[in-house]
Amino acid sequence: MDNTKQTNVPLVGIIMGSKSDLNVMQDAADVLKELGVSYELTVVSAHRTPERMFHYAKSAHGRGLRVIIAGAGGAAHLPGMVASITHIPVIGVPVKSSNSIDGWDSVLSILQMPNGIPVATVALNAAKNAGILAAQILGTADTTLSQKLIDFKEELRKKVEESAKEMEG
Amino acid sequence: MDNTKQTNVPLVGIIMGSKSDLNVMQDAADVLKELGVSYELTVVSAHRTPERMFHYAKSAHGRGLRVIIAGAGGAAHLPGMVASITHIPVIGVPVKSSNSIDGWDSVLSILQMPNGIPVATVALNAAKNAGILAAQILGTADTTLSQKLIDFKEELRKKVEESAKEMEG
Amino acid sequence: MDNTKQTNVPLVGIIMGSKSDLNVMQDAADVLKELGVSYELTVVSAHRTPERMFHYAKSAHGRGLRVIIAGAGGAAHLPGMVASITHIPVIGVPVKSSNSIDGWDSVLSILQMPNGIPVATVALNAAKNAGILAAQILGTADTTLSQKLIDFKEELRKKVEESAKEMEG
Amino acid sequence: MDNTKQTNVPLVGIIMGSKSDLNVMQDAADVLKELGVSYELTVVSAHRTPERMFHYAKSAHGRGLRVIIAGAGGAAHLPGMVASITHIPVIGVPVKSSNSIDGWDSVLSILQMPNGIPVATVALNAAKNAGILAAQILGTADTTLSQKLIDFKEELRKKVEESAKEMEG
Amino acid sequence: MDNTKQTNVPLVGIIMGSKSDLNVMQDAADVLKELGVSYELTVVSAHRTPERMFHYAKSAHGRGLRVIIAGAGGAAHLPGMVASITHIPVIGVPVKSSNSIDGWDSVLSILQMPNGIPVATVALNAAKNAGILAAQILGTADTTLSQKLIDFKEELRKKVEESAKEMEG
Amino acid sequence: MDNTKQTNVPLVGIIMGSKSDLNVMQDAADVLKELGVSYELTVVSAHRTPERMFHYAKSAHGRGLRVIIAGAGGAAHLPGMVASITHIPVIGVPVKSSNSIDGWDSVLSILQMPNGIPVATVALNAAKNAGILAAQILGTADTTLSQKLIDFKEELRKKVEESAKEMEG
Amino acid sequence: MDNTKQTNVPLVGIIMGSKSDLNVMQDAADVLKELGVSYELTVVSAHRTPERMFHYAKSAHGRGLRVIIAGAGGAAHLPGMVASITHIPVIGVPVKSSNSIDGWDSVLSILQMPNGIPVATVALNAAKNAGILAAQILGTADTTLSQKLIDFKEELRKKVEESAKEMEG
Amino acid sequence: MDNTKQTNVPLVGIIMGSKSDLNVMQDAADVLKELGVSYELTVVSAHRTPERMFHYAKSAHGRGLRVIIAGAGGAAHLPGMVASITHIPVIGVPVKSSNSIDGWDSVLSILQMPNGIPVATVALNAAKNAGILAAQILGTADTTLSQKLIDFKEELRKKVEESAKEMEG
Repeated sequence: MDNTKQTNVPLVGIIMGSKSDLNVMQDAADVLKELGVSYELTVVSAHRTPERMFHYAKSAHGRGLRVIIAGAGGAAHLPGMVASITHIPVIGVPVKSSNSIDGWDSVLSILQMPNGIPVATVALNAAKNAGILAAQILGTADTTLSQKLIDFKEELRKKVEESAKEMEG
Repeated sequence: MDNTKQTNVPLVGIIMGSKSDLNVMQDAADVLKELGVSYELTVVSAHRTPERMFHYAKSAHGRGLRVIIAGAGGAAHLPGMVASITHIPVIGVPVKSSNSIDGWDSVLSILQMPNGIPVATVALNAAKNAGILAAQILGTADTTLSQKLIDFKEELRKKVEESAKEMEG
Repeated sequence: MDNTKQTNVPLVGIIMGSKSDLNVMQDAADVLKELGVSYELTVVSAHRTPERMFHYAKSAHGRGLRVIIAGAGGAAHLPGMVASITHIPVIGVPVKSSNSIDGWDSVLSILQMPNGIPVATVALNAAKNAGILAAQILGTADTTLSQKLIDFKEELRKKVEESAKEMEG
Repeated sequence: MDNTKQTNVPLVGIIMGSKSDLNVMQDAADVLKELGVSYELTVVSAHRTPERMFHYAKSAHGRGLRVIIAGAGGAAHLPGMVASITHIPVIGVPVKSSNSIDGWDSVLSILQMPNGIPVATVALNAAKNAGILAAQILGTADTTLSQKLIDFKEELRKKVEESAKEMEG
Repeated sequence: MDNTKQTNVPLVGIIMGSKSDLNVMQDAADVLKELGVSYELTVVSAHRTPERMFHYAKSAHGRGLRVIIAGAGGAAHLPGMVASITHIPVIGVPVKSSNSIDGWDSVLSILQMPNGIPVATVALNAAKNAGILAAQILGTADTTLSQKLIDFKEELRKKVEESAKEMEG
Repeated sequence: MDNTKQTNVPLVGIIMGSKSDLNVMQDAADVLKELGVSYELTVVSAHRTPERMFHYAKSAHGRGLRVIIAGAGGAAHLPGMVASITHIPVIGVPVKSSNSIDGWDSVLSILQMPNGIPVATVALNAAKNAGILAAQILGTADTTLSQKLIDFKEELRKKVEESAKEMEG
Repeated sequence: MDNTKQTNVPLVGIIMGSKSDLNVMQDAADVLKELGVSYELTVVSAHRTPERMFHYAKSAHGRGLRVIIAGAGGAAHLPGMVASITHIPVIGVPVKSSNSIDGWDSVLSILQMPNGIPVATVALNAAKNAGILAAQILGTADTTLSQKLIDFKEELRKKVEESAKEMEG
Repeated sequence: MDNTKQTNVPLVGIIMGSKSDLNVMQDAADVLKELGVSYELTVVSAHRTPERMFHYAKSAHGRGLRVIIAGAGGAAHLPGMVASITHIPVIGVPVKSSNSIDGWDSVLSILQMPNGIPVATVALNAAKNAGILAAQILGTADTTLSQKLIDFKEELRKKVEESAKEMEG
């Protein structure tokens, strides 16, 4: 099975609580594109569109999604609520929004889920890491994608070594 | 209209994310009883029973509830999610549960709701205050209850003055 | 009873500790106006005008106010002190003022009220939510206002769905 | 002028928000007694007895009090409110009460007073230091008391040096 | 492919920085056992056995591991370092150890990974959720396991509903 | 005794850890000038000039100083160390310096003094309040200054009432 | 040069603000003994014995001390003040004392030293690490001690590997 | 032995997790240059170049390095991991990077090392202090360098005294 070939059917759903989160969440989409993983991108608000959120999470698996990336700020309930409805893995991205208390609210309301309902939380604003993690999850059963992740790591290494050479002069 | 006479129909719904929250949340019920306000008490988990939560919030107003008190710990989504579904006032009680990070997680995930969806948050573990606040809300249109709240405040005053006399000796 | 018709008598008192808080607190006034709820707006400082604060809180109910919204920053005592004097519901808005320690001081000094004296606290700078909550409280006994709140929620939903369509392209 | 001779008229008023704060606040009384400074001790709650608090602060100077020590926990408004009413120095003692969020709430709601209304804040639960500070304030115009404070410091020094000798063996 | 049949080859590696973490980390093993997912359990310290850690991470994929669960307390480097070496998904469990500063150190040093190297972080001490998340990740390509997760959620729901019935009496 | 007449001899020593603190600490000098209290202003660093600090604190009382105001940022040791050497009251001003961790370091290292050695701590950057507090301390034995403080409070009140009239329109 | 032979002359001075810190600070002494590094142990309080502290720091280098380990709790000024007086390296141990705010006060008032005056800070209560760090510092010019540190690391490694074997069963 | 003469062989290795940390870390290099201590400067990322990091730490002592200064932001594992591999002293500089949660993540993940593996942590962004500390460590066995550090302290003192004169004007 090679997920990266099925470009018509999104494997990863990227959702966010508000369109203002897009400047952060776009990074998830970009890295998935770079890794050749199909995705969809939309706005789903736990608080302003609870029924849409319910429907999104409930239908996710049936529509072919295997992983959901959910970003939200403040009292960020979207990742946890989606995880309460679907059984596929949910990755939560705490977004540091304008009236956030330094990001602590987003981090804690995504991370501190009760036993039974995990959310795979990444760092504050780290949508890129959410995308990579989604690819790693799909890569557990996809050797082509798995190899791309090995190459991706190799690229990171090379860039640091170039910086090092430059600094060492 | 006198709410305190309608003892058969609960006006306040007290819900909590887990039965382990009852030792905190019972205080809300006790003070409502003391003030003669009818209530119901049950467990509704946003994360483990999302559909039950949806149904509870959606039907609340129709069933006669005018205020909902929701207590939860950790990544506490119950108050905010209920507030997203119903238009009646929701009072949130942050509960300091066992793996909570000093209660900060519950406080922030209840308090920091986005614009459009308020949750009336009270202090950590302050279910008694949630009950009083529910009575104050109903008291805005109920002169009998309003008078009981004036008397309640008077009782608080008297107890402090007795303590003072005792200490002054 | 229809509160929204009594436009001459303010039902909600919006007060703030300093005129510099107006840029935050105006949002409460605006949403109440949008929902057709009468209000008054003034400066009352717990620390610089304690007697004015006492008089304001003491006379509030008699003058017809049913809910008070109080915003303050730093060691924010206004909401709690007003709640200690009146028996009508008090909504507290923590304001992130210039020398605040990231807003934590305002949040904690409003939220953490002792048993007996609740303050319905909303998120940092969330004066708009304070306004909506005031309307929800009045809406518990006002079906016209209650319907407006249902419509208001519907508007929030529509805007998110438009954002979603736009993003899905 | 020698304050320490006027034992009939209390110079320092020690007040606390609840009698449960006495186990902390007694230290202030004890050290004042040790230093020969007259004091009175009572319960005054900003939230449950606001008028008593008002009266206490308003009459303090006229009754001969020169310094007030006020201890409170949680959303601790007592020190700041007393300071807003009287012009004599107010020392605030943050008390770590049972539902406090690790004492942060008491500390911040006492310390972070706005410009114009200082509260001389001491460490969490440090009622002894509040007593010493009150004595230092009175000692600015009382040479007998001033000398006692010098002796008190000398005692502290000696105890540490004894510990040192003991440890050095 | 059905992971649950391959009981001889561990699919999930559960590692912890110290044997004192076992009382927390055992929960991960227990839930994996319950879900029929093969695992191995050992001690790997980033700080005291860096070469063992390197070897463990480097060889993980080749030995058949598809997911690693790493728990650690304090300055918890194990999850992040393992994630830096392998390309398979790493789940981090912040453990509240004895000299931890309320767990904040473990949480932040696991969660706040830089771009390129995600760690799927779960709540403080939430090893059970780490186990469930590992199963969800494997379940993306394993319909038997996927169904078990659906059943697991259903069990959670039932238990809450029983609690609710009991409380409603 | 009227302190305000003795303009040649400074009664209050205002010191700061670095000249970069002057933009904050000038407020203390300004309010003392406004209240007619004599003061001196200089730089004393606990860390870079420990002997100067020792000498300053040791000689303070003998030179006629009755109160010391000490401002410092980061690991702010100046107020506490001065308080350890002199027996006159020391007011500490936590300064939010450039590499401070949001001011928490300055606040905690000034406030949390051990039993025996109080520092009268004011809010972050609140040098104005430090000046007022110094005047209140001197005012305990100076009726002219005491009256000025009453007038000062009255001015604060008037300004708020003017703001209120303006806002009420 | 072999420091470990000079057992008569202490190379490391271990000091603490109060004898109650000994239960934490003893660990520093124990590990130095284990590594064969000579040390002395005493009480020096920055706040209660400032002159003793001055003298201790001033004379340290002349008396042969090469490293000072200083432990203190709350507003912990001892490590920073000693570092301001001597030019030899000072290692600071934040001690979580009884009225500490979760240890944050000790950590920040030791760590956040201004430019020019470093304190080598170790983890909360980590006196053992302070001892090891002192040995590492002396080991930079002492090959015997350096070898002992290599052996010490090897012991740590072995213990973890034994735990691992035991757990793997 | 005079380290400052061996300018060809670096005694201090300054490493950082990313070239973007150079604007902070350059201060370490500058102060070492000023004090005549030889150093090398490069990029070593624990997360993106784990093998390079291993090799760097493993070979450090053999190549003549006596102290390593490691700066990193966010979940900063570089200082602790290097300390786990080498036995020479490691100084950690927490860097406040762009997506850091106010620097708390860097501070805690460097400071809170487990027993056995110390990192000598300095203040947030305090690379200059890291450089001075490295010189102090080398100065324990180098009288020329030791004298330079005494002179350096003297310079700090003079600058403050000049500021004082200027302010006292």
